[in-house]
Amino acid sequence: MKAPIITLTTDFGTRDGFVGQMKGVILSINPYCNIVDITHDITPFAVREAGLVMKGIARYFPHGAIHVTVVDPGVGSERKHIAVKTYAGIFVGPDNGVFSWILSSAASWEAREIKDETLFMPNPHPTFHGRDVFAPAAAYISAGRNFESIGPVVEDPVVLHCPAPQETSNGILGEVIYIDRFGNCAANIESPMLTHSIREIQVGQSLISGLTRCFSDAPLGTPLALINSFDLLEIGINGSRASEELSVEVGDYVIVRWE
Amino acid sequence: MKAPIITLTTDFGTRDGFVGQMKGVILSINPYCNIVDITHDITPFAVREAGLVMKGIARYFPHGAIHVTVVDPGVGSERKHIAVKTYAGIFVGPDNGVFSWILSSAASWEAREIKDETLFMPNPHPTFHGRDVFAPAAAYISAGRNFESIGPVVEDPVVLHCPAPQETSNGILGEVIYIDRFGNCAANIESPMLTHSIREIQVGQSLISGLTRCFSDAPLGTPLALINSFDLLEIGINGSRASEELSVEVGDYVIVRWE
Amino acid sequence: MKAPIITLTTDFGTRDGFVGQMKGVILSINPYCNIVDITHDITPFAVREAGLVMKGIARYFPHGAIHVTVVDPGVGSERKHIAVKTYAGIFVGPDNGVFSWILSSAASWEAREIKDETLFMPNPHPTFHGRDVFAPAAAYISAGRNFESIGPVVEDPVVLHCPAPQETSNGILGEVIYIDRFGNCAANIESPMLTHSIREIQVGQSLISGLTRCFSDAPLGTPLALINSFDLLEIGINGSRASEELSVEVGDYVIVRWE
Repeated sequence: MKAPIITLTTDFGTRDGFVGQMKGVILSINPYCNIVDITHDITPFAVREAGLVMKGIARYFPHGAIHVTVVDPGVGSERKHIAVKTYAGIFVGPDNGVFSWILSSAASWEAREIKDETLFMPNPHPTFHGRDVFAPAAAYISAGRNFESIGPVVEDPVVLHCPAPQETSNGILGEVIYIDRFGNCAANIESPMLTHSIREIQVGQSLISGLTRCFSDAPLGTPLALINSFDLLEIGINGSRASEELSVEVGDYVIVRWE
Repeated sequence: MKAPIITLTTDFGTRDGFVGQMKGVILSINPYCNIVDITHDITPFAVREAGLVMKGIARYFPHGAIHVTVVDPGVGSERKHIAVKTYAGIFVGPDNGVFSWILSSAASWEAREIKDETLFMPNPHPTFHGRDVFAPAAAYISAGRNFESIGPVVEDPVVLHCPAPQETSNGILGEVIYIDRFGNCAANIESPMLTHSIREIQVGQSLISGLTRCFSDAPLGTPLALINSFDLLEIGINGSRASEELSVEVGDYVIVRWE
Repeated sequence: MKAPIITLTTDFGTRDGFVGQMKGVILSINPYCNIVDITHDITPFAVREAGLVMKGIARYFPHGAIHVTVVDPGVGSERKHIAVKTYAGIFVGPDNGVFSWILSSAASWEAREIKDETLFMPNPHPTFHGRDVFAPAAAYISAGRNFESIGPVVEDPVVLHCPAPQETSNGILGEVIYIDRFGNCAANIESPMLTHSIREIQVGQSLISGLTRCFSDAPLGTPLALINSFDLLEIGINGSRASEELSVEVGDYVIVRWE
């Protein structure tokens, strides 16, 4: 029998036992499931960052995997608890936009409010729905709980405004949306948008001529642009941190100019 | 068949392979067990911090889970190796007080010295009992080794002095015992002690009027107090780090004044 | 049935979802395997550091465990993908020297280039062979794929030059090769080389007289030397960070003088 998969993505860090409590709750409800840590190092309260990570990982998991995502600055407020079912898997977390990129990229989806209190720990604590709502709900779903029974359909889950790249007369105007651990800076420009051959790419004061295929194709220390493994235009430097060397932050413009 | 659970809590960090060696030892002895990382980011040598994390996580795990805790500044000295059996689970680690909060909160417990050398790796290294004593002992116990056979009863395991809050004429005088990743500051004041309605809570120069239910109930940037998910009085700030904004450290007084 | 073990050692960090994608790929191919995180906090691009960690952990795992190691500054270049089979296990990663210490310490080994494209994800991305080559190859091997079928034998996998300690007229001249999370500094001097009784050990300006057995045998704050749990001569300080207190870096000389 294959163990059902529950992945965990949070901004809880790993030093405080918060994630440990969630794992305990899950294994107490369904001792047969396979808990997979994605990351607990999302920047605190960074809902967008978590949303991009979720989009990045979901399609690599077996269909039916359950993904728990808890980046939840509004915990305890009136925001809903939701579960979203797509072809790729089931996503469980706060209705604060963390699933924006899952919803916008899915061919179809069904969202439900997690409302049946038999899915919760008794007396859920108002500051820790990760442990008392999302972990147990995911565990019960992994143990066979019917998706339709968890609560009413949510027609309009929260979707964050994602900055869209603009086509200009001679190229594309986009912006940096994610900076990874290596200091590489991904823009909101997906590879299919690069329809012409590129004269140059500008970020801040730096000009980069064309795309390279991989980091090691560029000389050490020189800014480069490539299509990253999430299929986005990325600015990097072979062997160092582009975000620091080029002073790039999330939100900075990335300008592509055609030949 | 449910896999037996072995959790790991250490101050080893994750970059050096120490934890990897412990996992290898465990899986070599009992390949069927489910290893669950709680944290490896306990502040180095911080026995109290690890003790509070253990108390925080243990009751959320299935009964019978085995919890290995290795924060062990005296490794190689004469301190005993112990295992403590409670209703919640079995705790394996150094006898240096790391199980103080498990012992003081358990209805009953049995502690034994891990003395039978068939439970150890051959020639245990004097600087790494995590790998050569605690990991294998936990693995053998998970594989069915009788608890009584591991070694003699320990009547008086080390229990650290925990600062107790004081009742004053018009409130409670406690202190900060734990600061979490978000900079929230937990005091040694459990919610049942809050028997009167609260006029104000003081930490350092900051005065907070009464309790809020959750972070998002307070305005952004304003100090707040709430009962945290460990059932302790906690000082925080919605959207920022109370420990830094209010210059709070472990050991600082927290004063509750009744109305 | 025992779950086949796949360990993961990378410099990807844990915040970006890279490791999550690798886990998804592995579980999509072989949902029965047991994925074990060794570390994702190798210093970025530090092939030697990863190599030392691999040597450190491999012999503690059950025979047949599969170890995926991705520290890969040359990803996308012409460097080969390899798998190395030893008595201890199967090692999967880039042919950049990361398995130097596995190869040099194995009684015998067989290395093969991972060349059969049915082992890859479709269209492997040139910047992420961890996800598109090494993870799936390891998963297929864990699912029973014949080792001989993965590709041709590699006679001469890349082996890094490892600095060798020198015997001098009155001792040994070695150097620091690894500094751990606690600031302890391990030298390239293995315990069997310490054939005479030691008068003193010098690192930088510090002189240490002889070996102690463990940290707690030395007074707090005093430099000490001991044989560490990897069987190497190590410079440390009981209760603080030798690397910082003594200004020690990887490559610094460690001089042992006989009595």
